[in-house]
Amino acid sequence: MKDLAMTEMMTKEDVTAMILSAKKQAGMTWEEIAAKIDMSPVWTHSAAMGMNAFPAEKAKLMVSVMGLPQEAESVLAESPTKIWEQAVPTDPCIYRFYEIVGVYGPTLKALIQEKFGDGIMSAIDFDMSVTRIENPKGDRVKVEMSGKYLGYNSW
Amino acid sequence: MKDLAMTEMMTKEDVTAMILSAKKQAGMTWEEIAAKIDMSPVWTHSAAMGMNAFPAEKAKLMVSVMGLPQEAESVLAESPTKIWEQAVPTDPCIYRFYEIVGVYGPTLKALIQEKFGDGIMSAIDFDMSVTRIENPKGDRVKVEMSGKYLGYNSW
Amino acid sequence: MKDLAMTEMMTKEDVTAMILSAKKQAGMTWEEIAAKIDMSPVWTHSAAMGMNAFPAEKAKLMVSVMGLPQEAESVLAESPTKIWEQAVPTDPCIYRFYEIVGVYGPTLKALIQEKFGDGIMSAIDFDMSVTRIENPKGDRVKVEMSGKYLGYNSW
Amino acid sequence: MKDLAMTEMMTKEDVTAMILSAKKQAGMTWEEIAAKIDMSPVWTHSAAMGMNAFPAEKAKLMVSVMGLPQEAESVLAESPTKIWEQAVPTDPCIYRFYEIVGVYGPTLKALIQEKFGDGIMSAIDFDMSVTRIENPKGDRVKVEMSGKYLGYNSW
Amino acid sequence: MKDLAMTEMMTKEDVTAMILSAKKQAGMTWEEIAAKIDMSPVWTHSAAMGMNAFPAEKAKLMVSVMGLPQEAESVLAESPTKIWEQAVPTDPCIYRFYEIVGVYGPTLKALIQEKFGDGIMSAIDFDMSVTRIENPKGDRVKVEMSGKYLGYNSW
Amino acid sequence: MKDLAMTEMMTKEDVTAMILSAKKQAGMTWEEIAAKIDMSPVWTHSAAMGMNAFPAEKAKLMVSVMGLPQEAESVLAESPTKIWEQAVPTDPCIYRFYEIVGVYGPTLKALIQEKFGDGIMSAIDFDMSVTRIENPKGDRVKVEMSGKYLGYNSW
Amino acid sequence: MKDLAMTEMMTKEDVTAMILSAKKQAGMTWEEIAAKIDMSPVWTHSAAMGMNAFPAEKAKLMVSVMGLPQEAESVLAESPTKIWEQAVPTDPCIYRFYEIVGVYGPTLKALIQEKFGDGIMSAIDFDMSVTRIENPKGDRVKVEMSGKYLGYNSW
Amino acid sequence: MKDLAMTEMMTKEDVTAMILSAKKQAGMTWEEIAAKIDMSPVWTHSAAMGMNAFPAEKAKLMVSVMGLPQEAESVLAESPTKIWEQAVPTDPCIYRFYEIVGVYGPTLKALIQEKFGDGIMSAIDFDMSVTRIENPKGDRVKVEMSGKYLGYNSW
Amino acid sequence: MKDLAMTEMMTKEDVTAMILSAKKQAGMTWEEIAAKIDMSPVWTHSAAMGMNAFPAEKAKLMVSVMGLPQEAESVLAESPTKIWEQAVPTDPCIYRFYEIVGVYGPTLKALIQEKFGDGIMSAIDFDMSVTRIENPKGDRVKVEMSGKYLGYNSW
Amino acid sequence: MKDLAMTEMMTKEDVTAMILSAKKQAGMTWEEIAAKIDMSPVWTHSAAMGMNAFPAEKAKLMVSVMGLPQEAESVLAESPTKIWEQAVPTDPCIYRFYEIVGVYGPTLKALIQEKFGDGIMSAIDFDMSVTRIENPKGDRVKVEMSGKYLGYNSW
Repeated sequence: MKDLAMTEMMTKEDVTAMILSAKKQAGMTWEEIAAKIDMSPVWTHSAAMGMNAFPAEKAKLMVSVMGLPQEAESVLAESPTKIWEQAVPTDPCIYRFYEIVGVYGPTLKALIQEKFGDGIMSAIDFDMSVTRIENPKGDRVKVEMSGKYLGYNSW
Repeated sequence: MKDLAMTEMMTKEDVTAMILSAKKQAGMTWEEIAAKIDMSPVWTHSAAMGMNAFPAEKAKLMVSVMGLPQEAESVLAESPTKIWEQAVPTDPCIYRFYEIVGVYGPTLKALIQEKFGDGIMSAIDFDMSVTRIENPKGDRVKVEMSGKYLGYNSW
Repeated sequence: MKDLAMTEMMTKEDVTAMILSAKKQAGMTWEEIAAKIDMSPVWTHSAAMGMNAFPAEKAKLMVSVMGLPQEAESVLAESPTKIWEQAVPTDPCIYRFYEIVGVYGPTLKALIQEKFGDGIMSAIDFDMSVTRIENPKGDRVKVEMSGKYLGYNSW
Repeated sequence: MKDLAMTEMMTKEDVTAMILSAKKQAGMTWEEIAAKIDMSPVWTHSAAMGMNAFPAEKAKLMVSVMGLPQEAESVLAESPTKIWEQAVPTDPCIYRFYEIVGVYGPTLKALIQEKFGDGIMSAIDFDMSVTRIENPKGDRVKVEMSGKYLGYNSW
Repeated sequence: MKDLAMTEMMTKEDVTAMILSAKKQAGMTWEEIAAKIDMSPVWTHSAAMGMNAFPAEKAKLMVSVMGLPQEAESVLAESPTKIWEQAVPTDPCIYRFYEIVGVYGPTLKALIQEKFGDGIMSAIDFDMSVTRIENPKGDRVKVEMSGKYLGYNSW
Repeated sequence: MKDLAMTEMMTKEDVTAMILSAKKQAGMTWEEIAAKIDMSPVWTHSAAMGMNAFPAEKAKLMVSVMGLPQEAESVLAESPTKIWEQAVPTDPCIYRFYEIVGVYGPTLKALIQEKFGDGIMSAIDFDMSVTRIENPKGDRVKVEMSGKYLGYNSW
Repeated sequence: MKDLAMTEMMTKEDVTAMILSAKKQAGMTWEEIAAKIDMSPVWTHSAAMGMNAFPAEKAKLMVSVMGLPQEAESVLAESPTKIWEQAVPTDPCIYRFYEIVGVYGPTLKALIQEKFGDGIMSAIDFDMSVTRIENPKGDRVKVEMSGKYLGYNSW
Repeated sequence: MKDLAMTEMMTKEDVTAMILSAKKQAGMTWEEIAAKIDMSPVWTHSAAMGMNAFPAEKAKLMVSVMGLPQEAESVLAESPTKIWEQAVPTDPCIYRFYEIVGVYGPTLKALIQEKFGDGIMSAIDFDMSVTRIENPKGDRVKVEMSGKYLGYNSW
Repeated sequence: MKDLAMTEMMTKEDVTAMILSAKKQAGMTWEEIAAKIDMSPVWTHSAAMGMNAFPAEKAKLMVSVMGLPQEAESVLAESPTKIWEQAVPTDPCIYRFYEIVGVYGPTLKALIQEKFGDGIMSAIDFDMSVTRIENPKGDRVKVEMSGKYLGYNSW
Repeated sequence: MKDLAMTEMMTKEDVTAMILSAKKQAGMTWEEIAAKIDMSPVWTHSAAMGMNAFPAEKAKLMVSVMGLPQEAESVLAESPTKIWEQAVPTDPCIYRFYEIVGVYGPTLKALIQEKFGDGIMSAIDFDMSVTRIENPKGDRVKVEMSGKYLGYNSW
């Protein structure tokens, strides 16, 4: 099989590698890339990493902004299968967010129930931003998440 | 040993149970309790659950607001050992936040590095809020986190 | 602490035990209980097990139908924390459903995307039924699930 | 060994890759492919992914419909070893089904026992469909499973 | 709640303990108990351990043979939830069977497919026996399992 | 190192691949191969998969029966390291045997002790067969295992 | 059930606790206890911990040596279910042996095969001793294990 | 990078493969190799597998005895990172040693404490041998371990 | 058994609870307790938690300093079995040390080998201290560990 | 895709391999390399392994000191994602540090709280050294860690 003269399909991993290479060569930031395709930096990075699908017109724009091969357009638009290998992340920057979920998870649940009723915050109809807040005692990272409230159905 | 006439020490679990019972009887919300001790609802719930320590004057206030026995004051002020049993939480409301860390963890890391340099958002010098945002397509849960940026040391 | 003359709060586990006991003594089926509170058998069993919250009027009805103590009413209405101990269930009847998710999970995902776009079936705005289908080669279990389609947000 | 002039055998993974490539080039949906081989979309996708074996005549048809090399026919007909890597799936679309098994597994078991006796729903003599149900509040995903009831043997 | 004058329900664990106690006092073997209720020793032990449900008439017989309280009859007849705590058993006698599945699992699968087609041996419509085979080089344990062949459905 | 002109050693995986390829081309069953080397099908498949070592004369025979390169003879005779990747197997056909060990493991242990004393069934001095039993209600898979009884030593 | 006037059966855990208590009060060492029942210290400790069964006459002797209640005799003679909770032990003294198996396991296997053929050292027909070896550079712990060689069966 | 004309460094895995290949071609046993470098068979095998470092003069000798390339000498002398993949080994020959640690670990600990005090047997200042003991009832594997006693420090 | 008029033995957990209670009532710090028994604070806390054994004279002193019952003396002197439940600790203060081992473990190993040769730092012949270092940019925690170098044995 | 004439990006793994190769050829120690770039040996090794990012001027220096290709400079300066594969390390030298965290973790926490209040030692604003301490009873490894104290925020 490996010897068949078959064109292997381009994968999301291939396109991510191409984006990272082009980004480095162009010296662009994620914020700049996001601005060029008129999306937020969080969503743009996530989709470039292959964790979200580009809407058709954004895929087209991304190919042109980053100088990707034409075949990449349809790959960017494909629905990804979201896989993470580490149930508990080891990178300190990511672990701290895991820790926050461990420590404050029951609190988030209790306050959502107090304010809305029995339900959850959607992680699908969802958006997020990261901002730098200047502070004389040391600047702060601000993360804002917003997701649609979904109430449990009784039937 | 079990027969020794010794006073068993009150634990954080005991005090949490007393708070939940008093809260139910008084019909108070976390927001109301938080207001009475002049702290945020997120922190108040978390500390009441035994996941944070009450500063001395807040412990005193909490005992009086909730009608707890005097012995509870020092227990509220103790440093907790933060333990969660489930590496991957099963409750849907908490799992969604875990999922966000899985899907967007590398994105949070990339944007923090882009905006600050090589480092992390502290989960210790940290605060958080939960708000209800009205929205004609369905109200939204807004979660805002802010933590001090900590840059890696080189030495 | 254990010696304090404090009324321990009734828990969802307590109420589940009372329901199971009352059900056995009354010789009722889940279908009959569900009919009496005018809800579906799947939802009724699940809520009786403490995995869903009873809306206020259903909690009231349940207390009267099963002859539960008054205090149970507010407990039935509380939002549960949904916990399952076994990441991979061992009971053969439950394992078969786990196996179906393992074998057909990627298929469910592919067909949802083909029919709707990039998104998921909600497990919150969700309902389910179980039916017996007569069949000369052996009767069949029919399980029908329906959940609202939620499309991923791009922002 | 790696230098032996031996023909490596075509694997199910190879054939899956060929099917995905052909499907993309032809712009066909799973529903269309399924219709051409006169099987259901769920089964067709699952078998194309290498999670089910094609009956002889269906393997032949599939090779002709998708323009696969002749050698693929016998590979499609082989019994697969069904392996999934993630005991707890991370992709949100698949996870929601895992969550349903976690939350409603005991309920499915209780109702199967109430309607049939002590036994299970077979995951082998089994079929499933996915349908889009229009709904003014948002279209819904309907999943229907049906498996033969198998009663435990006493001996 | 713990103070409510409520009769706690007898559980399968309670009945198992009563059977083991009665068996020890009566000096009976599993083989003798099985003979008295006219079932096989494997099934009888398994059901006495709470891993299988007694058919109504066998439950009645068991209560009379072992001198159990009347309430035990309905408990013996309940469908059990089959739970084992150790994914990999540590007891050497049980581990050896786990090891056989690890070493010979793919072989069992290959030969079932060769003899029957694509399918499995049912673990539900299933029976098993254990026999002592005399052998001059050391007696041997013979384990015979038989389960209905179930072929995968294509639909 | 990778550039050294060194002959890489043939591995058991290599020989297994060669056997599977030769078996497919020759259209032989495991039963036929086993008959040609005068061993049982279970042992033959297992050894061909690299999970058992061929005695010298059987290795020679296997090479000739399957038309393997001469170097394969010594590889077939090597002691394998028996490794399985999945502590809990996912393939349904293999899982059912795992489930039987989970459900009936304590029963197997109890009956071996009743018939032999405190000890185990050897998984080393062991043999097994798989047979098809015709049955009007559906043919059955019969698996027979026999292992030497080993009593625990006291010293 | 908990209120039934039933004599709870004495368990191996109960007897272990009684032995440890009697040993402490009598100020005996394991070596002394072993000498009094004419068994080795390793086996005696292991059986006292409930990890091995006492032969009938040794159980009788143990009851008399340690001053245990009569009921303990039959409990000591029961076949234990050997369970250890930690797949990887944390106690440093036990972990070092686990580490030796990790580091030298493949070596033990290779040398057993070189000296005996394809097989294993039995852990059932097995004995072990622990000795103190005086050494000017620091005394040494000597552990000697001996188990019957068991060769794999080919059939 | 992959295209850089850089010499890849020889690894311990490379040297292990060369030793195994040379050993097979020369038809030597581990005992013979060990004799030629004047070390024990256990240590020699372990170091050849890359689990121990060769002292300088032994590395030199090994290169000459096995006919390895010169570069291998320094590789043999490097400190290895000792990694094993399986927390619970599956190979039956290695598993039996794991089982011994599980069953007799607490016994080894208790006897070391009785003979030496609170401490451990070193797995670093450690040696081991494997011997074949002839026995009319079946030859036995004898494993002798000796490690320096290390007492816990109090400070 | 539970009804036997037997004195239950005092455990290390019991004594730890008594120490914590006495410490709270007396308002002593660990530093003060350590000074009174003339040991370091790290060792004193660890031994009080039941993770180290008190030498005889220190056990005597501890009983007198903390006002413990006489029976506690021998319990403090017993060798503990060191168990921790969480392979990956969740408490942030402890996790940070786990993280340091994850990030810098290979570095610690490389530098120990560079300075000493192939070996390890003993965790048994070991001591540790914690100090507060004043610093205008924020005080620092200083942790100093020292353990005997142990070189691997070749034999 | 794999056939695209695209320059693959140099990774941190590539640069680590180049540094190790250059270090070996030059016969330098980590201490010497660290001195040449005027950083500590611990930090230098860690950054060379790809677990820390080089500040711009240090990356430049490293490239010149080790004779790396120019492209390596920017790679050395990139923020790494810190991943370790083994939740519990198996290498004995690294495991001992893991063991120290397991045994003394609660002690480190208790003493930090006693000296500072409720908080942690930062693993980010952190430094560490390894020293050889001569000692007539055997030289000792000294590890010194220092991290900024971070107090929990109440808000």
